[in-house]
Amino acid sequence: MIDLRSDTVTTPDDRMRDAAQSAAVGDDVYREDPTVAELETTVADRLGTESALYFPSGTMANQVAVRVHTERGQEVLADRKSHVVKYELGGLADLSGLQVRMLDTDRGAPTPEQVAAGFVEEELHRPGTGLLCLENTHNARGGLAIDPERIAAAAEAAHDRDVPVHLDGARVFNAATALDIPVTELVDPVETVMISLSKGLGAPVGSMVAGPESFVEDARRTRKLFGGGMRQAGIIAAPALRALENVDGLERDHEHARVLAEGLTAVDGFDVQEPETNIVLADIAGTGLETEGVLNRLEERNVLATAFGPTTIRFCTHRDVSRSDIDAVLERIDDAF
Amino acid sequence: MIDLRSDTVTTPDDRMRDAAQSAAVGDDVYREDPTVAELETTVADRLGTESALYFPSGTMANQVAVRVHTERGQEVLADRKSHVVKYELGGLADLSGLQVRMLDTDRGAPTPEQVAAGFVEEELHRPGTGLLCLENTHNARGGLAIDPERIAAAAEAAHDRDVPVHLDGARVFNAATALDIPVTELVDPVETVMISLSKGLGAPVGSMVAGPESFVEDARRTRKLFGGGMRQAGIIAAPALRALENVDGLERDHEHARVLAEGLTAVDGFDVQEPETNIVLADIAGTGLETEGVLNRLEERNVLATAFGPTTIRFCTHRDVSRSDIDAVLERIDDAF
Amino acid sequence: MIDLRSDTVTTPDDRMRDAAQSAAVGDDVYREDPTVAELETTVADRLGTESALYFPSGTMANQVAVRVHTERGQEVLADRKSHVVKYELGGLADLSGLQVRMLDTDRGAPTPEQVAAGFVEEELHRPGTGLLCLENTHNARGGLAIDPERIAAAAEAAHDRDVPVHLDGARVFNAATALDIPVTELVDPVETVMISLSKGLGAPVGSMVAGPESFVEDARRTRKLFGGGMRQAGIIAAPALRALENVDGLERDHEHARVLAEGLTAVDGFDVQEPETNIVLADIAGTGLETEGVLNRLEERNVLATAFGPTTIRFCTHRDVSRSDIDAVLERIDDAF
Amino acid sequence: MIDLRSDTVTTPDDRMRDAAQSAAVGDDVYREDPTVAELETTVADRLGTESALYFPSGTMANQVAVRVHTERGQEVLADRKSHVVKYELGGLADLSGLQVRMLDTDRGAPTPEQVAAGFVEEELHRPGTGLLCLENTHNARGGLAIDPERIAAAAEAAHDRDVPVHLDGARVFNAATALDIPVTELVDPVETVMISLSKGLGAPVGSMVAGPESFVEDARRTRKLFGGGMRQAGIIAAPALRALENVDGLERDHEHARVLAEGLTAVDGFDVQEPETNIVLADIAGTGLETEGVLNRLEERNVLATAFGPTTIRFCTHRDVSRSDIDAVLERIDDAF
Ligand SMILES: [Ca+2]
Ligand SMILES: [Ca+2]
Ligand SMILES: [Ca+2]
Ligand SMILES: [Ca+2]
Ligand SMILES: [Ca+2]
Ligand SMILES: [Ca+2]
Repeated sequence: MIDLRSDTVTTPDDRMRDAAQSAAVGDDVYREDPTVAELETTVADRLGTESALYFPSGTMANQVAVRVHTERGQEVLADRKSHVVKYELGGLADLSGLQVRMLDTDRGAPTPEQVAAGFVEEELHRPGTGLLCLENTHNARGGLAIDPERIAAAAEAAHDRDVPVHLDGARVFNAATALDIPVTELVDPVETVMISLSKGLGAPVGSMVAGPESFVEDARRTRKLFGGGMRQAGIIAAPALRALENVDGLERDHEHARVLAEGLTAVDGFDVQEPETNIVLADIAGTGLETEGVLNRLEERNVLATAFGPTTIRFCTHRDVSRSDIDAVLERIDDAF
Repeated sequence: MIDLRSDTVTTPDDRMRDAAQSAAVGDDVYREDPTVAELETTVADRLGTESALYFPSGTMANQVAVRVHTERGQEVLADRKSHVVKYELGGLADLSGLQVRMLDTDRGAPTPEQVAAGFVEEELHRPGTGLLCLENTHNARGGLAIDPERIAAAAEAAHDRDVPVHLDGARVFNAATALDIPVTELVDPVETVMISLSKGLGAPVGSMVAGPESFVEDARRTRKLFGGGMRQAGIIAAPALRALENVDGLERDHEHARVLAEGLTAVDGFDVQEPETNIVLADIAGTGLETEGVLNRLEERNVLATAFGPTTIRFCTHRDVSRSDIDAVLERIDDAF
Repeated sequence: MIDLRSDTVTTPDDRMRDAAQSAAVGDDVYREDPTVAELETTVADRLGTESALYFPSGTMANQVAVRVHTERGQEVLADRKSHVVKYELGGLADLSGLQVRMLDTDRGAPTPEQVAAGFVEEELHRPGTGLLCLENTHNARGGLAIDPERIAAAAEAAHDRDVPVHLDGARVFNAATALDIPVTELVDPVETVMISLSKGLGAPVGSMVAGPESFVEDARRTRKLFGGGMRQAGIIAAPALRALENVDGLERDHEHARVLAEGLTAVDGFDVQEPETNIVLADIAGTGLETEGVLNRLEERNVLATAFGPTTIRFCTHRDVSRSDIDAVLERIDDAF
Repeated sequence: MIDLRSDTVTTPDDRMRDAAQSAAVGDDVYREDPTVAELETTVADRLGTESALYFPSGTMANQVAVRVHTERGQEVLADRKSHVVKYELGGLADLSGLQVRMLDTDRGAPTPEQVAAGFVEEELHRPGTGLLCLENTHNARGGLAIDPERIAAAAEAAHDRDVPVHLDGARVFNAATALDIPVTELVDPVETVMISLSKGLGAPVGSMVAGPESFVEDARRTRKLFGGGMRQAGIIAAPALRALENVDGLERDHEHARVLAEGLTAVDGFDVQEPETNIVLADIAGTGLETEGVLNRLEERNVLATAFGPTTIRFCTHRDVSRSDIDAVLERIDDAF
């Protein structure tokens, strides 16, 4: 089975497994796990922030970060297709009482004009805008790598209105790789960033929130509230530390995505969006089938992908998929359509 | 001062004041206020529903109705510019944990296709869509009277997905008047409707939620939770009953709006949206001023209107404004620009 | 029917009805209702606070006040039998995310030691105590009038820990009357106080929150969120203003309660708590009946009272009950048992 | 340093570390991690329930379980000193809108009479009681092992009122060990149970909720909402599986607690509660010091314990503490006082 459903399916390699086995651990609720501490320091250094905090999931990392930035009743500006809006179970409203003002953006990031238009001043009828939330790469729009100028311009428009900015950077290393810039160029313009270790980097578990020290301290308590305080978390922080060494490998995933996209373009009925990172979106309306039908036909040939709409399929390359896997996928799809 | 800020400023007339003075009252938390009971029965009859419930405000009426329809974490489909989204302080998220999926509609009501596209099936990542919320007339889009076919089509698209529909009908009698149809034609396609008594109808205080009896019973308890249980509310329900007799007068307000709009069209720099009911929106960008500047110039001439955007002003006609008031307003504006 | 269920059943007299009829009104959401403004100024003056705000119910007044004092997740210290805990539908948790630490107090007010013991310092595992909530008179404990020394001592214990104090003074004028002191002696030690106008004072609708001006400004917005923004509320604020003149009459209600209690003491099977204000609690276990049985027997004789537990009944005297009503009640109960 | 602060500090042994290294893994959000699946099946079998679910923390496991049992606004009956009340940051109120009715129980479990007295019927003023929450062993009351008769009696009183029961069994294997009964005797009377793997059993990370299959399915989605969906969680589930083999070792921890308690009884100024499991509470008022002073004096001698009140200290034995450690602790304390 060649699994292109998501880069979350990456499994830890031997180096990571060995790191888990030999990890120095302590009770991280007491802040005594040295491996977690090393991970947090390392991530903060890499991202150029004061501090960072380890979370069991990207959902919790995002939810906690947004909550710490805001007060209940405030509005959060976010692209309509962003992860916090679509895939986090309405948690911003449910757990934190926040109203999302959904923006229809061009490539996943609002223009300064859209930030200005979406911004709500605090007054009697409205608690006002409390946060701008960006996402890079932008998953639901096809893994788009948003360039630093757009990030900075959106952030500046927010800052001009005293609104802080959180970046859902679950795949921000993919973005930096695709843009061939230091990741700090994408992080510098925002107050806080979330990164996932368990996606393309291959860690078994975990995401981080990075930002100012006082923010991270508040996030630590909110993480406890959400049930994210883990004990000897060094066992999973150790492979996560190893995962940070895998950033260079992301370029290979992007290359695989380009090869895959090129091949899919030749398939009858497939309309393929040119990939910028490790995500390939294909509109399969031309096959005369709906998503489920296409996915079933692929699964019969031991290829897995993800439904992304009635006629849209997402293929996601990652470090557990080789160039020959990609070639095999293309052969099998060519055979199926 | 001629006050065109809102039809909420309508003051009770002598008939209403006399009704307040002589109202039969009881403790409505014990369900023993005969005047409130009469108001609730009368409204249910007029709207063709089983039951109705009296509220101190339209905001509470909407918030309670939406909450009773839904479970926390669910999504509510609503036009981006609807009152529940823009003017109720994020209460759906803050008080009830609901995420609003904002729709960009043509005239305030989504097409069936927009309902279908906005609908979210309940699954692991998403609690799903719990309610479609419509608004008629649509305030922020200029008092548009949405015809029953559009209401019914949107509702049917929701019902096809087992999603109930709530109509914010704060000004639904204005809509029925403008469309020259029985109000029941606008209410029949939906499960529940909110109507305001304190706007064009002239009651001092109060709005209603009308719908099935079991729904209204649930709403009664949620009203208590929100602090809407009033005691000898007959004192305000009595003038509200009289206000129901004022539906015929709404046509006059609409006529005034047409006269006003026609006159404003001639004013230098005013770009006026043709009114359908009692609301006139004017884009004043052409004056070279911003909203505040224009409002100030009007106020100096004893005319009040409302800011509706950086270059948009809302004028709202109502029963406390006469034809000669409208003429006076036009003269003064002509004088000012 | 002689109705001793609650002093909320009081109906407006002619003076109040005339006041409603002739009230000067305006749109109070725009802060332009002169009668509401006069009521708010008058109440603030009477209670010795900077400011006051009118609410459609005591539940909303309490819920908004507590919310404005606190942050979500904080703890509120309150007597286990207080109104905010027992009769407000869990609103503190449901609407504002607050955990109540219930205290088992002697006469409804905690001792300084109980405040100290219940206080929780903010730390990693606990957001800490955000408010002490007192109640005077204490309804569920039998209308107890808590003396200013106890109020002040509890408040001081809270203040020593930087915890503000809200007083649910729905019947604080009853307390001041019973203790024969100015009401300000009961209000001075606390930050904010809620008073009900619709109970013993006889107003048809309304309660107030009084406190510092900045607090009241915040409460104004939260009132809007809860749906408590009413339009021409002068119609009910005018009789409420008249109701403030009825404070002197409360002594008569207390006298009636004493007469009633004395009479009930002689009834077979009734164990009567000596009343301090207008509330009489009787344990009717000795009758061999449960509460419902006793209430039914009373209702057959046109006397209404309230169930307050499996064998406890509450009788509440008020301005619509005369001395001869009390005598009649005693005769009928004597006849029934 | 001999660390008696908590059994959460237990570190994984080599068997657990090897299990982590060689764990079969998959994406558990897709329900494809075989090790997590095995852990969940194994735990359900051990506890005699249909199903079980893995969580990153006991706090999340409790919070999710309580939420799935209840509706917002309902009341939860729980001992005043239970973990969900004291140590979970008010999450029941903050995240789920639940009001806790705190019970003052004798040994941590309410009597049937207390359940009956605390139960609130659903009615207009109250959403009613939605859950009884028990805890066994009871941490804050000194690790008390509550016998199955008390658990069953409390549960029956709840069930008689159609109220389900959740057991916070973070240390339920300690309870079963101390009572010398199968753990199922303590679990059978309740609907759902939470167990911790990271405390006395020694797993690095994780707790479980066990109960009916449909309940666990609902909990799976709520876990996602709270951010508890982890990816290749087999890396920590594998050592957790090994940890289940450590139940027999708990008897040794209890023996150590008895030895420690006996020794502490002889220390000047220490008043020691006789331990039932692995927790020893000592009131150190007799030393003339406050908790901090005593803890500091211990820390100077390389012994760690936990503050449990102004004059109460908790010592917690666990598998990383040997008999000679206990002897050393007693020597050092004898030396210090
Ligand atoms: Ca992974
Ligand atoms: Ca009005
Ligand atoms: Ca002109
Ligand atoms: Ca009254
Ligand atoms: Ca451990
Ligand atoms: Ca000694």
